[in-house]
Amino acid sequence: MLLHTLVLAGLLCSAVAGPHARLKSPKKWNKKTRLPEILAAKSSSNSTTTTTFSTVVEAHQTNIFISLSDDEAASVISFLHNQTELNLTAAADAGAWDNAIEVVDLVTPNKTDALDYLDNGGAAPDRYALARIAFGASEEPWLQDFIVGPLPITNASTYASLDWATTSGSAKIRNYNADEDSVTEWNYNVTDTVADIVLDLLNGTATGAGDDTFDIWGIDPLWMEEIDGEQRVILWNTYWRFPDSIFDGETLLPQGLFFKSDITGRDPSKWRVLGWLYGDIFYETTEAFRNAWSSPDFVRYELNLPGSWIGSDRVGEALPADERAAPIFVQPDGQRFSVDEEQKYIEWMDFSFYLTFTRDTGIRLFDIKYKGERIIYELGLQEAIAHYAGNDPVQSGTAYMDTFYGFGPYAFELVAGYDCPTYSHFLNGTFHASELSVTHRNNICLFESDPGYLMQRHSNDEYLALTRNVIFTVRSVSTVGNYDYNFDYIFAMDGSIETVVRASGYIQSAFYAKNNDYGYQVHDALSGSMHDHSLNWKVDLDILGTENTFVKHKIVPVNVTYPWSNQTRSTMQLQRERVENEDDAKLSWPQNGGEMFLVENSDKPNKYGEPKGYRIAPSRGGAGMYLTIQDSPNLLKSQGFAKQALSVTKQKDTEARSSHANNDYDPGNPLIDFDEFFDSENLNQTDIVVWLNLGMHHVPHTGDMPNTVFTTAQSAFIISPHNYLLNDASRSTRQMVRIDYNASGVQLVKQFGGKLPSGVVNLTSSQPDFFAYEGDIATRKFPYDPLHPFNDTESIV
Amino acid sequence: MLLHTLVLAGLLCSAVAGPHARLKSPKKWNKKTRLPEILAAKSSSNSTTTTTFSTVVEAHQTNIFISLSDDEAASVISFLHNQTELNLTAAADAGAWDNAIEVVDLVTPNKTDALDYLDNGGAAPDRYALARIAFGASEEPWLQDFIVGPLPITNASTYASLDWATTSGSAKIRNYNADEDSVTEWNYNVTDTVADIVLDLLNGTATGAGDDTFDIWGIDPLWMEEIDGEQRVILWNTYWRFPDSIFDGETLLPQGLFFKSDITGRDPSKWRVLGWLYGDIFYETTEAFRNAWSSPDFVRYELNLPGSWIGSDRVGEALPADERAAPIFVQPDGQRFSVDEEQKYIEWMDFSFYLTFTRDTGIRLFDIKYKGERIIYELGLQEAIAHYAGNDPVQSGTAYMDTFYGFGPYAFELVAGYDCPTYSHFLNGTFHASELSVTHRNNICLFESDPGYLMQRHSNDEYLALTRNVIFTVRSVSTVGNYDYNFDYIFAMDGSIETVVRASGYIQSAFYAKNNDYGYQVHDALSGSMHDHSLNWKVDLDILGTENTFVKHKIVPVNVTYPWSNQTRSTMQLQRERVENEDDAKLSWPQNGGEMFLVENSDKPNKYGEPKGYRIAPSRGGAGMYLTIQDSPNLLKSQGFAKQALSVTKQKDTEARSSHANNDYDPGNPLIDFDEFFDSENLNQTDIVVWLNLGMHHVPHTGDMPNTVFTTAQSAFIISPHNYLLNDASRSTRQMVRIDYNASGVQLVKQFGGKLPSGVVNLTSSQPDFFAYEGDIATRKFPYDPLHPFNDTESIV
Repeated sequence: MLLHTLVLAGLLCSAVAGPHARLKSPKKWNKKTRLPEILAAKSSSNSTTTTTFSTVVEAHQTNIFISLSDDEAASVISFLHNQTELNLTAAADAGAWDNAIEVVDLVTPNKTDALDYLDNGGAAPDRYALARIAFGASEEPWLQDFIVGPLPITNASTYASLDWATTSGSAKIRNYNADEDSVTEWNYNVTDTVADIVLDLLNGTATGAGDDTFDIWGIDPLWMEEIDGEQRVILWNTYWRFPDSIFDGETLLPQGLFFKSDITGRDPSKWRVLGWLYGDIFYETTEAFRNAWSSPDFVRYELNLPGSWIGSDRVGEALPADERAAPIFVQPDGQRFSVDEEQKYIEWMDFSFYLTFTRDTGIRLFDIKYKGERIIYELGLQEAIAHYAGNDPVQSGTAYMDTFYGFGPYAFELVAGYDCPTYSHFLNGTFHASELSVTHRNNICLFESDPGYLMQRHSNDEYLALTRNVIFTVRSVSTVGNYDYNFDYIFAMDGSIETVVRASGYIQSAFYAKNNDYGYQVHDALSGSMHDHSLNWKVDLDILGTENTFVKHKIVPVNVTYPWSNQTRSTMQLQRERVENEDDAKLSWPQNGGEMFLVENSDKPNKYGEPKGYRIAPSRGGAGMYLTIQDSPNLLKSQGFAKQALSVTKQKDTEARSSHANNDYDPGNPLIDFDEFFDSENLNQTDIVVWLNLGMHHVPHTGDMPNTVFTTAQSAFIISPHNYLLNDASRSTRQMVRIDYNASGVQLVKQFGGKLPSGVVNLTSSQPDFFAYEGDIATRKFPYDPLHPFNDTESIV
Repeated sequence: MLLHTLVLAGLLCSAVAGPHARLKSPKKWNKKTRLPEILAAKSSSNSTTTTTFSTVVEAHQTNIFISLSDDEAASVISFLHNQTELNLTAAADAGAWDNAIEVVDLVTPNKTDALDYLDNGGAAPDRYALARIAFGASEEPWLQDFIVGPLPITNASTYASLDWATTSGSAKIRNYNADEDSVTEWNYNVTDTVADIVLDLLNGTATGAGDDTFDIWGIDPLWMEEIDGEQRVILWNTYWRFPDSIFDGETLLPQGLFFKSDITGRDPSKWRVLGWLYGDIFYETTEAFRNAWSSPDFVRYELNLPGSWIGSDRVGEALPADERAAPIFVQPDGQRFSVDEEQKYIEWMDFSFYLTFTRDTGIRLFDIKYKGERIIYELGLQEAIAHYAGNDPVQSGTAYMDTFYGFGPYAFELVAGYDCPTYSHFLNGTFHASELSVTHRNNICLFESDPGYLMQRHSNDEYLALTRNVIFTVRSVSTVGNYDYNFDYIFAMDGSIETVVRASGYIQSAFYAKNNDYGYQVHDALSGSMHDHSLNWKVDLDILGTENTFVKHKIVPVNVTYPWSNQTRSTMQLQRERVENEDDAKLSWPQNGGEMFLVENSDKPNKYGEPKGYRIAPSRGGAGMYLTIQDSPNLLKSQGFAKQALSVTKQKDTEARSSHANNDYDPGNPLIDFDEFFDSENLNQTDIVVWLNLGMHHVPHTGDMPNTVFTTAQSAFIISPHNYLLNDASRSTRQMVRIDYNASGVQLVKQFGGKLPSGVVNLTSSQPDFFAYEGDIATRKFPYDPLHPFNDTESIV
């Protein structure tokens, strides 16, 4: 009744309801009645065409990028053990003075071979394995990468040093830290010489016994230092208190006592203690340290002790209504994407791609096609640096390159209902290290969701047109020690793909002593050690073929005198600039976003003459993506990719990765020095690769206690079509509505064939089953016994 | 059975499953068994404390910021009509030569008065109305703001010019465009002189008749140009083709013919045509234009014609599975926040705030408290500039300041199920203009949702700790002509608040003729006219009182020689710098995010000596936030806030807004010139205000056809606690789980009292009801007749 009255009133009053003449209608448009009024109606035009769909798909082509199978890995390991000149010991039995296989993985096919298969009907490239072997049986131990194949192993299979995949020209790198067990023993022995001081200052022990208070570890990578004209291998250590609960907060418990060791060579009897540091005072000898400690004016610092503050369990006052279940996603109509589980091939809407999983970098995406055309050949993480600073040598000396530890081994099982919606499609990931094949069950999830805002909308006084924004996410989380890295690849209906990294987990912190210049005090005796995260991605865009150009479209202020203007006008213009050569291809994101970076195919203009391309742009975070320290004494020649926001190089099969997992062994003489990629090559209409950093400058504050939160520790870039299609691609979705209305109410609702959610969803039956969490399954590879896998989350490598 | 076998195998193999000695465990930690294994168990510790909760709350204090009620507006209008010296005509009857009330709104209380009420038990400040009156009955017409009150109107109520709220010292601004109806007539008359040319070149007519082909409009704001030593009022116009369907794409249909008029003064007989422009050739007279057109070598351009490309309905091939309903949010356990609808007061978790709604800027938030302490006094949009450029005078001359049109009038009803989840709590917004009180029903929505990623996680081989990320959004969408601005204020469990603006809808475009330097060709005869969006926010943070300081914490590369190092080391440090004075307070976001910007209370350190504060940082977009053109001939003295990314000033009740809706009338002599706020005042521990821009440089490409999409047109900033609390505030939510596990399976699941979603959700009954869309309700204010409201979405002002 009320409605009826209002409508009537509306009709009666419409004559006087016109706008005041001087009040502005937007953009000064005149009103024009364009359509006759029609009776209220539903319309489902456009709804009759349906598509055949199955959640299971068979990839048209073999996934030539897929990880080695367990059988392949086993055969490679067996093959290598048969090569007597390698003198291999089974990994399970190997000691520091043995040669042993560390990692087996796929050698990614050369792009030329891959394209010949993918595009030209050529044969699938032969599969080859990478074998990373530690040669311990030597006074100068080293690691070396080999290529083994073709697979499956036959009499024709051979192996060779993978020299061509490095910039150093050799696949070998010296291992200055081959004797870790001896180093551990050394650390305890050194500690033993000051056990009374440690007990006094730190109130605990570190003897190697089961009831130890402290863990001992330090800088990464090791330093090379010239002492008396000789290169020496230096290790700075400090003491970390073990947490007193299950909570993994050891990196919150540094104790503030440091010692420096010369661990050059393989004879621990020749190793030396080079000094002690406590309270920012350096003592060159243990004796000097002992003397100072004995003196009455020795300054002691408050202890950094564990406690409930380390834990991440709920604390504090209850929040109103928080015991009620919060909103969640449901999938009312089943899975809307297709997966070939065996081939790790995925199709969602107009996108398709292959997944692979490696020990070094976790998931990578290959051959991403959009509307049948490849837009990205390869998209994947290359390296993650976490570079610390501090007034103590351990913080100052630490610059993790996390592929050394690997992202694959730490990409654990995800928890349905938390890490990903319960309706997600989960995939497994497998890696092969230490002659174990370890399968992380459900460590990759695929799901559709709603980002919480529309793709498109427009409304006026006659109609509304609204398009839902449905996104498809590929997610994996790698917990590399203290930090949990959440990696998302997000596909959207407008043809864009966003790459997101977020960090949670425990910070690595510093003992609080005279280090205000390096971070905030965050607990009683704790500093949130400042550090830079810089994570490098390879983005090998191929826009309508491999011949592409990187262009900058600049928005620049200019002064112009126009034919129609007597005066010079201050205005702006679009200036197009090509990045013509690798010499000019180390780039920063422009101040105030004043330049657009595009990868275009200059030879493939659209019908209006604009080259088709994809734009590449930062999308979240913006907190800094490259290293503050441009010449790190820790990273030396291993930081090239992290000295600028992004870089462009000519694609080469010999320059397939920007970093190497073994660079950490000798960062001054790395296997891959990214700067070596830059040799003045022309970048015009050639196959180019973009190397792009995400990251943040992280100065932890009390809000990082006990864990950093994802919300404020995220960084992302997005690639999106730019003059690539002739219109917005999201126009092809059915997930839209148009509502025509006037003062009499809604006249027409057009829904375009997209079903509205209907029926009932049983939330109880879609609750997460936390007890289903299992961890990993491992299979020993030498001798090969696939019938006896075992749970192995503890033996992560 | 399989599981059992695996577990057994795990136990048997555990002795040999240890990692290879030389393979790295992350961060080189030693393993230490910390807890005895326990039997699988659920735990609901922490779950007994519940809170009382109602979705309805009564604000403890009156919302002193709330919009004028319909009754208040009516009484103010009536009061003003009684002031004979104002010589007012009822708005519905007023012509260009009358005086009439344009807008009535609240005069926001002075902050000092407000705080006295909010914090010190003082009386609620008297309410005062703003009345914006157009004085047309004059050869030199003007607009003027008045303050009227106190309310309710009594004999004690008075009115006065609101001079103190401007930097010009006067609330008056000249109206050089008082005769819009005459201008419209002029435009048709001018067109009439070249009707044959228009028909020939553009194939249509513009006579003012119902069957017109073209709309005529042009630059905004008007220009002042010196001609023969005299200031003249200049209007450049162009022709826009009316769309031939319901789709609102007039801004995609510029026709490429322009004319320049001198419309100085109020006598249209003295107005003159100053020239014509077609195909980048300027003709100083109509005769010259006609002669050129008559000549055989006159160059004609392709027509820009409407068609289906204007429409936003679904097109193209059907996408697989897209007819199925996509994932959606459901709210399984009811609303988890509380609203005082009358007072527009909202409580969600530890946050509370007041909402208000104004004609000029739409929604604003006041008195945002977090854990009982105010963190923001005022958060709201100030102005939105869209500055175009082009080789034609209309694009070059256009720089919209959208508060001129107003965000309130165009904040239409939202569509449940599209704009916001169907379970959202909707509020109405009301504004008062042209002596109408217009209520937009359901134009503000409040909802909880899941952003699709966790707040916190950490896992290792013994446990996982995972915290859900539940966010609370306040949303409003204003469609100011062609563009739909989506405004979100997003609250999160870690104490952060994100402000997001996204743009969709139609671009304003340019006719394609020799303008490659100003954008891309996006259709047959169309250029996507390049433009800068710069939207300014007032962020009046109050951290533990009003005495605050803006500080930069810089991450800087340094060379340091440490006591423990013989060599100088290249490293980085944290440097703290205060922004001491307004002279230094115009800021840009630093290159590579190398500085953190904080508002801190230097006198309120936390227990570790770090001042408590909130950080303010860009969070999405990063596509550029301030104007490329630093000295716009269109904006003149009205662009001060948009010349840098953000600025800091001392809070003053006389400097309450960075722009004024009437600046557009005379941007060279604006009511508020933001640059005037900067008068070298000291900013140390005083009440400071941050003025921050969001936006983007927008060079529309084919992907903007027919509409720009929100996904790639968004910009946001986030404020987050920085050393403000002693830990991460999200630790207090129940929406977390801890799972302890080992090789034998899950041992413990802790859920902290947060209920899992359970039962069934009826999706059918929560489907959106598109037919419920109604539009707006208006009530005429003079004479006041609240019993006869009418539907009025067409009469938006």
